[in-house]
Amino acid sequence: MGFPELRNDRYLRALLRQDTDTTPVWIMRQAGRYLPEYRATREQAGDFLTLCKNPELACEVTLQPLRRFDLDAAILFSDILTIPDAMDLGLYFSTGEGPRFERPVRSEADVDRLFVPDPSERLRYVTDAVTLIRNELGGQVPLIGFSGSPWTLATYMIEGGGSKEYRYAKGMLYGEPKRLHRILDVTARAVAAYLNAQIEAGAQALMIFDTWGGVLSPQAYEEFSLRYMQQVLDLLDNRRDDGTVPVTLFTKGGGQWLEKIAATGCQAVGLDWTTPIDEARSRVGEKVALQGNLDPNVLYADPHTIRQQVRQLIEQFGPHNGHIFNLGHGIHQTVDPDHLKVLVDAVHEYGREIRA
Amino acid sequence: MGFPELRNDRYLRALLRQDTDTTPVWIMRQAGRYLPEYRATREQAGDFLTLCKNPELACEVTLQPLRRFDLDAAILFSDILTIPDAMDLGLYFSTGEGPRFERPVRSEADVDRLFVPDPSERLRYVTDAVTLIRNELGGQVPLIGFSGSPWTLATYMIEGGGSKEYRYAKGMLYGEPKRLHRILDVTARAVAAYLNAQIEAGAQALMIFDTWGGVLSPQAYEEFSLRYMQQVLDLLDNRRDDGTVPVTLFTKGGGQWLEKIAATGCQAVGLDWTTPIDEARSRVGEKVALQGNLDPNVLYADPHTIRQQVRQLIEQFGPHNGHIFNLGHGIHQTVDPDHLKVLVDAVHEYGREIRA
Repeated sequence: MGFPELRNDRYLRALLRQDTDTTPVWIMRQAGRYLPEYRATREQAGDFLTLCKNPELACEVTLQPLRRFDLDAAILFSDILTIPDAMDLGLYFSTGEGPRFERPVRSEADVDRLFVPDPSERLRYVTDAVTLIRNELGGQVPLIGFSGSPWTLATYMIEGGGSKEYRYAKGMLYGEPKRLHRILDVTARAVAAYLNAQIEAGAQALMIFDTWGGVLSPQAYEEFSLRYMQQVLDLLDNRRDDGTVPVTLFTKGGGQWLEKIAATGCQAVGLDWTTPIDEARSRVGEKVALQGNLDPNVLYADPHTIRQQVRQLIEQFGPHNGHIFNLGHGIHQTVDPDHLKVLVDAVHEYGREIRA
Repeated sequence: MGFPELRNDRYLRALLRQDTDTTPVWIMRQAGRYLPEYRATREQAGDFLTLCKNPELACEVTLQPLRRFDLDAAILFSDILTIPDAMDLGLYFSTGEGPRFERPVRSEADVDRLFVPDPSERLRYVTDAVTLIRNELGGQVPLIGFSGSPWTLATYMIEGGGSKEYRYAKGMLYGEPKRLHRILDVTARAVAAYLNAQIEAGAQALMIFDTWGGVLSPQAYEEFSLRYMQQVLDLLDNRRDDGTVPVTLFTKGGGQWLEKIAATGCQAVGLDWTTPIDEARSRVGEKVALQGNLDPNVLYADPHTIRQQVRQLIEQFGPHNGHIFNLGHGIHQTVDPDHLKVLVDAVHEYGREIRA
């Protein structure tokens, strides 16, 4: 597609468990509110949705953390709710309440109205941003595209927003499971189409965020979340002439189910901080790469402690291929950006050391 | 102490993994807002703290669910924040924001001011309620006393209220661990004194709720939560002339650490719904009883589905001793009480069936 040649392939090589000179690192929500320059761009945009839907501004905030930190990947700046928004559910953001949908999906008639949005029409702002960012990166690092998992998107679609108890989504799961399967099936097909469009537009790796998979029972997780991530993977067109576009699955709270996640055929599994990474490696690390898994709160400590914690995690993983350093969840908005710099530099330093 | 003789000891026998005629069941937050009679009593009290601090009203709401459902235990109605309140931190409840403390514990000087409250003075309203409830129960079922875990209490004390990110508590954990250890030590001694006073007052079993242990990394969980629950257990005076007062430890999100929890010497381990109970049984069930672990959202389904889910869980545990049926978390406030009746009756029916 004539994109600039990639100069730093640590992240992509680690995803495929190949040798690297040091441990690659990127940070979930690395483009975000903890950065003053992000807050300035967001203010310029007016509101969050406008920022997401403007490819130039989305490109700008995607690149901001790379100007400050020696990160090994960029991740598309976007929202996980772009798909339900493209399904005409009426996404809006109310102050203090987070995302809401005007038309939650609860009845059979609601489900009948769902459809797979054509990414080239309704999500064009996302694919335009991907292509623009890929060009603007100039080959500095690879670009990650992403989507929410079908179950995670469905919770928002059914609840009509964020939730603590999942009354409607889980009420449907236990009381009307066939209806929920219909929602998940159309959502899985929408996610696959969306991710394939991101690959076409220039995404070099993909991540699926199953933020709410961990609120399910083990049986429900397999039937209603993992199964549909599997469907997405099966529909992905990610074996390309120039190599595989690796996919990372991340179920927050999924530490008990790593073997099942790794068996989907994904290239990497994301870990939150509740599973020891050495234990995760011995359970699934011969099959997939592992991303993670520092507690984001470590960044509230002093630089010395941050370096210690980074070193400890790298030593815990050991001198093996297939580790992508990251936090176990998104960076918090009140973190001092200078602390993140300490972390990123320490990862590279100790990642080199352990290979020496 | 001259309390009425206990007529239903299923719950206590199951905690000690002895034979029972059927599976005992109680429900976390069984005295609560889903019951119209609870809402009426709370309105009569005026506010939540007044309800907690009035032994007659606390007794009334403790007994309410037992009038409706065939439950095998009563649990003291109280709040987990009674201890920090007795430490003079200025507990109050602000509408929509939940519990808050006027004086959060963050500096060394704040920690210097902490003390172990004398339960016979500052928590007398709790022990009075325990004795009153035990008498009013008339031996119908045993009475469970409880406390929050030291770590869980400390999160509220340090944050000054509820939290999503634990910025201050975890900032201290990583940046000032010695200070956090001081807080946890005094809190553990306060919890032990409080639980011993509940035993003296008539509690026949105890439960420690480690609601926020699951937000820790495995290493931090052992050092900052489990270690202090262990300290509480070591300080408990629960081996009585008339038998052991059994203790249940419940770390929400602790499914990966069951072996370590069971090794503390507690009699039972509470499970949320993310660990299959048969797997939990094979991991720790020869050592402790298990409490749990139905997803509370099952109660939003129809009666037929509720009965199916109960049956499935009882069959999953199998025909063994040592299962106390419960939800994996507190009952939600929008549940139909009639659905809980279906659940409780189904537990006893299928519990008998599996023993036949």
